[in-house]
Amino acid sequence: MDVVEVTPTFEQYAYTFGGVAPLMRIRPGTALRVWSEDAFNGALRSTKDLSSDKVDLRFINPQTGPFHVEGAEPGDTLALHFVAMEPARDWGASATIPFFGGLTSTAVTATLQEALPDTTWIYELDRAANTVTFAARHTDLEIALPVEPMLGTVGVAPMGGEVRSSLVPERFGGNMDTPQMRPGTTCFLGVNVEGALFSIGDGHYRQGEGEACGTAVEGAMTTTLIVELIKGDAPAWPRLEDDTHWMTVGSSRPLEDAWRIGQVELVRWFRDLYGLDPMDAYQLLSQISEVPIANVVDANYSAVVKARKSLLPRATAYGGLHDDLRRRAATLL
Amino acid sequence: MDVVEVTPTFEQYAYTFGGVAPLMRIRPGTALRVWSEDAFNGALRSTKDLSSDKVDLRFINPQTGPFHVEGAEPGDTLALHFVAMEPARDWGASATIPFFGGLTSTAVTATLQEALPDTTWIYELDRAANTVTFAARHTDLEIALPVEPMLGTVGVAPMGGEVRSSLVPERFGGNMDTPQMRPGTTCFLGVNVEGALFSIGDGHYRQGEGEACGTAVEGAMTTTLIVELIKGDAPAWPRLEDDTHWMTVGSSRPLEDAWRIGQVELVRWFRDLYGLDPMDAYQLLSQISEVPIANVVDANYSAVVKARKSLLPRATAYGGLHDDLRRRAATLL
Amino acid sequence: MDVVEVTPTFEQYAYTFGGVAPLMRIRPGTALRVWSEDAFNGALRSTKDLSSDKVDLRFINPQTGPFHVEGAEPGDTLALHFVAMEPARDWGASATIPFFGGLTSTAVTATLQEALPDTTWIYELDRAANTVTFAARHTDLEIALPVEPMLGTVGVAPMGGEVRSSLVPERFGGNMDTPQMRPGTTCFLGVNVEGALFSIGDGHYRQGEGEACGTAVEGAMTTTLIVELIKGDAPAWPRLEDDTHWMTVGSSRPLEDAWRIGQVELVRWFRDLYGLDPMDAYQLLSQISEVPIANVVDANYSAVVKARKSLLPRATAYGGLHDDLRRRAATLL
Amino acid sequence: MDVVEVTPTFEQYAYTFGGVAPLMRIRPGTALRVWSEDAFNGALRSTKDLSSDKVDLRFINPQTGPFHVEGAEPGDTLALHFVAMEPARDWGASATIPFFGGLTSTAVTATLQEALPDTTWIYELDRAANTVTFAARHTDLEIALPVEPMLGTVGVAPMGGEVRSSLVPERFGGNMDTPQMRPGTTCFLGVNVEGALFSIGDGHYRQGEGEACGTAVEGAMTTTLIVELIKGDAPAWPRLEDDTHWMTVGSSRPLEDAWRIGQVELVRWFRDLYGLDPMDAYQLLSQISEVPIANVVDANYSAVVKARKSLLPRATAYGGLHDDLRRRAATLL
Repeated sequence: MDVVEVTPTFEQYAYTFGGVAPLMRIRPGTALRVWSEDAFNGALRSTKDLSSDKVDLRFINPQTGPFHVEGAEPGDTLALHFVAMEPARDWGASATIPFFGGLTSTAVTATLQEALPDTTWIYELDRAANTVTFAARHTDLEIALPVEPMLGTVGVAPMGGEVRSSLVPERFGGNMDTPQMRPGTTCFLGVNVEGALFSIGDGHYRQGEGEACGTAVEGAMTTTLIVELIKGDAPAWPRLEDDTHWMTVGSSRPLEDAWRIGQVELVRWFRDLYGLDPMDAYQLLSQISEVPIANVVDANYSAVVKARKSLLPRATAYGGLHDDLRRRAATLL
Repeated sequence: MDVVEVTPTFEQYAYTFGGVAPLMRIRPGTALRVWSEDAFNGALRSTKDLSSDKVDLRFINPQTGPFHVEGAEPGDTLALHFVAMEPARDWGASATIPFFGGLTSTAVTATLQEALPDTTWIYELDRAANTVTFAARHTDLEIALPVEPMLGTVGVAPMGGEVRSSLVPERFGGNMDTPQMRPGTTCFLGVNVEGALFSIGDGHYRQGEGEACGTAVEGAMTTTLIVELIKGDAPAWPRLEDDTHWMTVGSSRPLEDAWRIGQVELVRWFRDLYGLDPMDAYQLLSQISEVPIANVVDANYSAVVKARKSLLPRATAYGGLHDDLRRRAATLL
Repeated sequence: MDVVEVTPTFEQYAYTFGGVAPLMRIRPGTALRVWSEDAFNGALRSTKDLSSDKVDLRFINPQTGPFHVEGAEPGDTLALHFVAMEPARDWGASATIPFFGGLTSTAVTATLQEALPDTTWIYELDRAANTVTFAARHTDLEIALPVEPMLGTVGVAPMGGEVRSSLVPERFGGNMDTPQMRPGTTCFLGVNVEGALFSIGDGHYRQGEGEACGTAVEGAMTTTLIVELIKGDAPAWPRLEDDTHWMTVGSSRPLEDAWRIGQVELVRWFRDLYGLDPMDAYQLLSQISEVPIANVVDANYSAVVKARKSLLPRATAYGGLHDDLRRRAATLL
Repeated sequence: MDVVEVTPTFEQYAYTFGGVAPLMRIRPGTALRVWSEDAFNGALRSTKDLSSDKVDLRFINPQTGPFHVEGAEPGDTLALHFVAMEPARDWGASATIPFFGGLTSTAVTATLQEALPDTTWIYELDRAANTVTFAARHTDLEIALPVEPMLGTVGVAPMGGEVRSSLVPERFGGNMDTPQMRPGTTCFLGVNVEGALFSIGDGHYRQGEGEACGTAVEGAMTTTLIVELIKGDAPAWPRLEDDTHWMTVGSSRPLEDAWRIGQVELVRWFRDLYGLDPMDAYQLLSQISEVPIANVVDANYSAVVKARKSLLPRATAYGGLHDDLRRRAATLL
């Protein structure tokens, strides 16, 4: 299985889902090895680099793509299987951007208070130990944390001719910021436009659930993925599958609506997977759901609803595609 | 170490936090073995028992207590360490009560739609296998699920002379409905009135995160716990500790506010535990928090914010009380 | 018609709805002339008095009452008709209490930001002109504003044995903070306990919709009202009637839920008033509702939904009680 | 003063803000007389026309425009003064579209309940009486209501290269659905792209505040407006001015955030208008704001915050442009 290498130039980054000409046309079944810049577009390289000075809001959260998938039509389902994610630099950066984040007022949760201090943290990567190190800015505490690479942003062109900032999570995917978007996961997205036009970016060397301060350990990433296409069967909202869980992602405000979306979408999926009446699926999921918050900081908030496969009878989705992709992925490593 | 057995009569149940005379006075250090009725007050015993017929809203979510803890004064910290929880019946019940739950309109998220069907599910307990069995009402699917006992409701008398329904989670604890309230966990609650006046109830043989339909596998429970008192140091919101995590629980609406509360409370706790400046704690927690939603169905929604101890330097809270309680608990089992 | 004068001592104020012994027993039909202290309990008397120094949180928002209405039983409807409200002092006070208000983070919309400056404004009353004067603290601007007296807090004892702080608006009424609670308005509240046990307080010499900073022009008030009782027919949520509008008040969080409650309650009322099917009432109200926000600062937010009588066929509620009370009120002035 | 007549063909309607080539280029100072189709694109003409049958979601809420305003650059302020709005048909239509509206679950406030009945109401227009008639579908009640024409949707191209559905209200304006957007009002919008690219549509013959069922008395409209341009001074969110009020419009979810946005924007405007420190503006507005909810049904909810000019010292905004436009408008009528 061949792998197509993709390393965009600065001019080639996309900052929206929709509204951008394809970077490349690919066939279903293609494996890609994609370089993505960090969400700050590489602007924060030391604790002296403050986001209010260095980050250019026109060039925030750059995406690599979009990729035009041949044969993809509205109503189809795009499957992106993440094989590997490797930090592409030896450090990641995080920052408390003024009036951005979960424990501050923002442009929409507007108050008259002063912003929190604009502060940058640099996390040095130790490749041997596979850790990034938190270094407190106000005391001497340093803590080495495991690298757990993930992509904050994965999405397709939206429906209805909309073009959305790469900062937005919505039913087209986008900036969901869930740690579940990691190697071993297959992401299923409904196709809205011909070619699907998916992009990826916003690599995180690690991230807590909720992404409280608004930024993870942001870092350039090299992502290996396999792209597949299922004709029809577009899910209403993003679905994820890994070896252990069925998952859905809802994104909206307030946060309970993000949760409601994810929970209803998993009820729908359980009808397909297990033939369950919605009331029975509602009941069953009430007793087994795992619900890690993804982000409470973006233009929409995101919640993940998960069901552990080991608790459930064996079932397959999309013709067992995830298992097949896992086998294909193994040939790439 | 002696264990005091407590089995209330029907007339002795409490339906509020605050406003009820003590069931019993105990000294700090006491171990209790407490029987609690299920949230339906035992009214649902077969799938033919519908909540709208059988459940008496005056007698919903009965609590065992309140217990007056000698020496407890406002500003102190009550510690409840859960040693064991054993299902006290051979079945649990769950129901979709009309206009109650997360995937339906309710009295406050009011719409003009019809209610979902009032439906009851009975979960048979297999003590040998330690499972409860989900039996679909509309198909033949049956699934044995592990028993994971927990208490939905643990709280003290509220501040300011308020008396709150046992259905409410708030800063006094109450109906938080988090699966973290399980054997091995120590719950720290700020004391608001002399004697603390804590109660427990709402046993769940298992529950998914979010408690989507509004009811878990509700069951009578026998709970063994040790009660301790710390003078002063009352946390603003409930804190939990187990062998693996530091945890806080926020309860409010909308759900993002529940999350904000929990996240800020853990920032505060990290200042005590690790001497971290709030900005550093905010940053660190942004990269390591685990945030399972507790409930999206009660009078307030609840979110848990957790930090894994194994990622962090060694620290102790409240003079290492949790570890001490674990040792004491071991003598009871 | 006699009027009973009520002027409580400091020790007689109530700080909760429910949980307090009656101040007085009255018969339906009684007219009262009631003195109420301001929400700060008189603690802010100059711009040098800061809320964080002077306001004692144990004694905030004192209520005059509760009044036991003879014959009132759960399920009945209490009608309070406001005849007159007169400022009882020559000044009112307002303040930006730290972490309280709509344009600041709070204990539940928790952030890590600093509080806004604790600032007090004193509004001098000009009885001849019937104005209170806003005096800017940072510039010389002074603006005389019309006195438009209202009560922020009107409520009965809650259901289910709850006792709630006088800061809370809920289905029992309470701290709704709507400018509609003014002379000429009749307020209908469902009775939850024997005697209804209503209280009033929190006089405002004027208030904007939303009560943005959390406090109005707070002032001691002398309120004349007539108390009536309707057997049965308890509304689920507070209803108001004046000569021009039918009104309902919903209180919850998020604010859209407060609105939903009020809108659904008015749909229900229109079924009684005009025999309308809920879908027709929904449609009609979609084209005629007026929806002034009441408060976005209290423990629950409140929204008022109004329908202008002059747009509608003539109808009467509760046997034309409002018109009757208007006539009786005229004899008192 | 000449008036340019604009009547688009079906193919010329715009369904998004941004992403559409200009319909026409105009100079600042131009007066337009614009025909706009109704939000259903004329699909509902009888009570037998159900929205689920007849309304094509690809062609919903058609806008007339966009208009390229010569000289408009990002950071400038577009002023649209509405001179007149005349119903362009003899009937308007309203409908309860399944899973759309405020008193139903929706795609994002997702539940498992059934939709409300898909129902259409036709409002006959009486030009002589200037009324539209509500005719109940389930009883015989008919009520003639005053025509109060307004535009639900007024906006410019969004910032950041986004393209948004005409169903969305946001900081670029859009589908705010406020009855304040009526003849006599000047709307100020920040310009995000060269030429501003504004569109208008979604005529309502009348609408209640909140637009509870999701649709007003929707009707084709002939709108006369004058277009002006102010260099610089772009407001962060839409501002409105009429002869009696200063107004701002915030749009977000939850509804309290829409309100916060509007309230903070009016604090900012008061700094410009009256030289007030933000804390003084916050205080003053707390006592005088009028806050009618605009919509609780769209992709974002909208709240209007108003201050009555007659309460305040005389001040002018944007060099007195509103008064000037009123004078110019008078020459057109």
